[in-house]
Amino acid sequence: MTSRSLPLLDFRSDTVTRPDDVMRQAMAKAEVGDNVLDGDPTVSALEQRAAKLLGMPAALWTPSGTMANLIALSIHLQRGDRFLAPRGSHVITDELGSAAWLAGGMPEPLEHDAGPGRPTPETLSAAIGVPRGPYYALRTPLLCLENTHNTAGGAVTPPDEHAQLVAVAKEAGLTVHLDGARIWHASVALEVPPAALTVGVDTVSACFSKGLGAPVGSVVAGSEEFVEKARRMRQMLGGGVRQAGVLAAACMVALDRIGDLAETHENATRLAAGFAEHGWEVNVPETNIVQVTAPDLEGRLAWLAGLGILTLPSSGRIRFVAHRDLSAADIEETLQRIKTGG
Amino acid sequence: MTSRSLPLLDFRSDTVTRPDDVMRQAMAKAEVGDNVLDGDPTVSALEQRAAKLLGMPAALWTPSGTMANLIALSIHLQRGDRFLAPRGSHVITDELGSAAWLAGGMPEPLEHDAGPGRPTPETLSAAIGVPRGPYYALRTPLLCLENTHNTAGGAVTPPDEHAQLVAVAKEAGLTVHLDGARIWHASVALEVPPAALTVGVDTVSACFSKGLGAPVGSVVAGSEEFVEKARRMRQMLGGGVRQAGVLAAACMVALDRIGDLAETHENATRLAAGFAEHGWEVNVPETNIVQVTAPDLEGRLAWLAGLGILTLPSSGRIRFVAHRDLSAADIEETLQRIKTGG
Amino acid sequence: MTSRSLPLLDFRSDTVTRPDDVMRQAMAKAEVGDNVLDGDPTVSALEQRAAKLLGMPAALWTPSGTMANLIALSIHLQRGDRFLAPRGSHVITDELGSAAWLAGGMPEPLEHDAGPGRPTPETLSAAIGVPRGPYYALRTPLLCLENTHNTAGGAVTPPDEHAQLVAVAKEAGLTVHLDGARIWHASVALEVPPAALTVGVDTVSACFSKGLGAPVGSVVAGSEEFVEKARRMRQMLGGGVRQAGVLAAACMVALDRIGDLAETHENATRLAAGFAEHGWEVNVPETNIVQVTAPDLEGRLAWLAGLGILTLPSSGRIRFVAHRDLSAADIEETLQRIKTGG
Amino acid sequence: MTSRSLPLLDFRSDTVTRPDDVMRQAMAKAEVGDNVLDGDPTVSALEQRAAKLLGMPAALWTPSGTMANLIALSIHLQRGDRFLAPRGSHVITDELGSAAWLAGGMPEPLEHDAGPGRPTPETLSAAIGVPRGPYYALRTPLLCLENTHNTAGGAVTPPDEHAQLVAVAKEAGLTVHLDGARIWHASVALEVPPAALTVGVDTVSACFSKGLGAPVGSVVAGSEEFVEKARRMRQMLGGGVRQAGVLAAACMVALDRIGDLAETHENATRLAAGFAEHGWEVNVPETNIVQVTAPDLEGRLAWLAGLGILTLPSSGRIRFVAHRDLSAADIEETLQRIKTGG
Repeated sequence: MTSRSLPLLDFRSDTVTRPDDVMRQAMAKAEVGDNVLDGDPTVSALEQRAAKLLGMPAALWTPSGTMANLIALSIHLQRGDRFLAPRGSHVITDELGSAAWLAGGMPEPLEHDAGPGRPTPETLSAAIGVPRGPYYALRTPLLCLENTHNTAGGAVTPPDEHAQLVAVAKEAGLTVHLDGARIWHASVALEVPPAALTVGVDTVSACFSKGLGAPVGSVVAGSEEFVEKARRMRQMLGGGVRQAGVLAAACMVALDRIGDLAETHENATRLAAGFAEHGWEVNVPETNIVQVTAPDLEGRLAWLAGLGILTLPSSGRIRFVAHRDLSAADIEETLQRIKTGG
Repeated sequence: MTSRSLPLLDFRSDTVTRPDDVMRQAMAKAEVGDNVLDGDPTVSALEQRAAKLLGMPAALWTPSGTMANLIALSIHLQRGDRFLAPRGSHVITDELGSAAWLAGGMPEPLEHDAGPGRPTPETLSAAIGVPRGPYYALRTPLLCLENTHNTAGGAVTPPDEHAQLVAVAKEAGLTVHLDGARIWHASVALEVPPAALTVGVDTVSACFSKGLGAPVGSVVAGSEEFVEKARRMRQMLGGGVRQAGVLAAACMVALDRIGDLAETHENATRLAAGFAEHGWEVNVPETNIVQVTAPDLEGRLAWLAGLGILTLPSSGRIRFVAHRDLSAADIEETLQRIKTGG
Repeated sequence: MTSRSLPLLDFRSDTVTRPDDVMRQAMAKAEVGDNVLDGDPTVSALEQRAAKLLGMPAALWTPSGTMANLIALSIHLQRGDRFLAPRGSHVITDELGSAAWLAGGMPEPLEHDAGPGRPTPETLSAAIGVPRGPYYALRTPLLCLENTHNTAGGAVTPPDEHAQLVAVAKEAGLTVHLDGARIWHASVALEVPPAALTVGVDTVSACFSKGLGAPVGSVVAGSEEFVEKARRMRQMLGGGVRQAGVLAAACMVALDRIGDLAETHENATRLAAGFAEHGWEVNVPETNIVQVTAPDLEGRLAWLAGLGILTLPSSGRIRFVAHRDLSAADIEETLQRIKTGG
Repeated sequence: MTSRSLPLLDFRSDTVTRPDDVMRQAMAKAEVGDNVLDGDPTVSALEQRAAKLLGMPAALWTPSGTMANLIALSIHLQRGDRFLAPRGSHVITDELGSAAWLAGGMPEPLEHDAGPGRPTPETLSAAIGVPRGPYYALRTPLLCLENTHNTAGGAVTPPDEHAQLVAVAKEAGLTVHLDGARIWHASVALEVPPAALTVGVDTVSACFSKGLGAPVGSVVAGSEEFVEKARRMRQMLGGGVRQAGVLAAACMVALDRIGDLAETHENATRLAAGFAEHGWEVNVPETNIVQVTAPDLEGRLAWLAGLGILTLPSSGRIRFVAHRDLSAADIEETLQRIKTGG
């Protein structure tokens, strides 16, 4: 038996999911308009629904989560500013530096001393220091949180800790942006509405193509005034597209499926448990991301690929991402291949 | 009869067209994949087809024409460079300055002394001057053409003039980018293949959502090496989307319909003729854009809106854009409303 | 006799002047301090004197005129903005594009239809158009004037024309920056105080190393609030230097010598007259810049160099700049060499 | 006795030193030229001398160390790059973010696990990871060292540790820039020539206005090709100044005085010893920077100011910088005031 004959089990990311027939039919039937000139009606409906879910006054559709974060940071930051974010945040490590070279911010990573992905209020407070010192010093106008925190293993920040961090930031006059690419996962894992995780933030991004199965699309949400600026920034970056309603229709279906993430999380937990049984060093997944520590990272990745199991390295570990296109049976099949493959 | 009761005739742009059932069904059936990680198969097929049509080795799908141009200019330009483009080029006037602040180029507009949208080789040569002078001087590494030229009234540059301009640029060592957002229109109007209009250029952008009816999507084409850089730049800007095959499928259908532009051009010609009969000062449209000069621009626009005729100002004139969602009957209806509305 | 044996007559720029003994002694005796931390006392005194002369509330010393303009434009412009400036303005053609790539502005050149370097109010008004249109359009928040206008041959804009242009700009809500690198020359030529040439402007730059003989230094002036922002921007660009008082002392001496420019202007006039007698096509210099049009530019430059006469090409012509290190006798010597050299 | 009657003892920075008569006379006699057009002869001589001292092929004078570093990073980095630097490096914390927003780099701070200011080779190696991964990932082309390391208390990196770090960087294909603002201090403290501390680096900056007493000036050194690019970048930033020889002459004198730093270091050591005797928590200074840890930072700073002792906070501590304008007697006076002031 060669690896070629095995069906691929793709754990590289929850972005690999494909739209199903329901989603495709919604796309085919979507009412559309010119989203640059008038606002596409389906896009507008999605934006309103997402804003409400996220507890914000308004939202703007974007082609990607990277663009959603980039727009927010570009509006919040000016040259000469730094921003604080938990170490390994997506805006620092995984967006090709656009937070620095395009949004203009110098990052200051915060240690995860309260738990995976979570700095303590004290750490945050110390990092803020003097937000606005002499003219020749960096200023600190922005805290950027991430919930769930991807490179920390899909770790969640519960509402009370979130509130404490936001309180420290607000006390010092900072703006708070939340990278909520997987806020839906945090919401399901914590059994609270998404809006419970955005309390006090100024802006939040969220994705429909991570875990929820939509092919393309994210939003960035905030005040009406913020969204007005964001619309202009989106156009500048080339994110102003026309009949985006065909995509927004899929995002609408995605929102109907938030509850399905519970099953995805169970699958991640089962996978991690199986890895631990197998003797691997693994995190206790809080949502859908399983991280395996291996001394020979490259070797382990190659060995997995040989078994038809696709993964990616992330922050020095092997990352397995559970998602809706991998069933409980696929999880068992994965563990079986690993057990017998060695 | 009030304007509210009249069906709207939307001449604002050829971006307002909506995908029809054939296009929607193609989208619903599209084979897809993760375009960031693997390349979506339908996107890849579209990129290959578009590259071939445009006479280039490779192409990259982008969400918008603005992003396609921005990517190309960002790769071609460095800080301290200027670029030459016919006066009123889209990259100068209609992309929110990203050619300057993001791609880094100082523009030098070229007069249209060979005809609408078309500088003479002599004008180009004089503007190039010394492409690379002393270290403290701007350098001139790029010529950016536009065919058809939007603000010049959809004006075409024929292959021989194109070749002469490219020859001058190449002789001086310049890179040439062609903004071909409506290259399909030029191709149909000139009765030559699109590739006849890209001879000698290094890179070219083209749109599927202008005139051809696709909801979202453009390409930027060039060498394999260029496309490799462009893919990275697209990701930086937030244009890296996942199952873009659902959009690329519509773009594929759009490419099947290039020939339909002939009818669109006839409609534009009929519209302009009607305007002239009505006593208006109007261009002789070379493709699908009709420009009306009016002493009281704002007043004329408002009057048209009152007749249910939507247009936009462009470069100090009123722009009517013919497109596939406006039939010959719609053109007659438009002329009738104007005739009786005054 | 070879060119090597001839003393060089350096007309390349008025930046080539060297500080004389009086200036050097002022530098040697200057009271100094740390200009980043405290404000150097001599720098502060210069800033106050320059601000008063320029009719502005406050001023900031900068190492160069390029940095002075760059700071002003960076503060006035945002991404998505364009700025208007007479064609061939220094900020467009001679500052390595920093107005575009760093300050973020898309330039719109204004024709010189009122005279050399001077657009008419009508041209300005038409170029402004709608300063703030729909979100997807460039905005126009800034007019950048230049007096004297370098590439237009050191041309002056008189106070009344200046006032009319500023009035049009202000009526449309624009900020006005004046590149006054050679505002001293305009002041002397027009026989008005420098402040008469800054009426209504928001910010103005001025140089001490062009024509006045100081080795290093410029200022940018405006409101107190502007100067506060400018100080921060100067630091960002690396223009925050320490005991700059040694340079400011020379700038102080330079300000004592503004009146000497009258002689420089006479020299330029004599030079141009001599060129005209020699049969050359030459401008009528309004200040210290003489422009010669030659069919074979490169050949003429080389021929002049062979005579020990150093010049530079500028906007397709040969530029001779009169300055305080070239005496009336040097002008006669120059004309003599040209007369006998052919 | 009030603080007003006490002569100020200024420990805020070694940038506060004033040029003495010898230096001022050198400035007054300096041979000068137009440094933009021709290269000022004194600047050129300084550049050659500095290049030789630093063991590099060529050097370029800049107005400030901030500009020197900014130029180097702008040349070494591209959008989508990250750079590695010891935590608290000047380019990260004290240059207003220009390494991020202008040079374009996303910083990755390295822990000081080998000692103050010094990461281990293992830490560096782990941080490099894969320098050039997939197209959608940040690249890591640059290591930026700092010797002495300012915020680590003027800590030195000895030649062997330097060599090991450079070896790891070079093995992975990285460029290495050294921020040598105080490389002279490291050289004196380690009793090695400056060039022993630049072995293997591609570029290095050094300052003449920190500790050596020159009023204005730094250099950035590297290959001839690098300096050619740097000259252009300097012009873009507004650092192209004219008769800079008046400043370079002072820098020349500064270079004659490197040996004097031994006395400055002794003063720092004496100051720290006195603080320790007084019961304060203080570092063991390796060069000229003394750091005091205080629970009530603001209170301690104010108390010191009341004694006429000027300091600044730095990285959460109080920083005292010894320099040539503070004599041994001043150190004793400082300790006396603190002893009796409490």
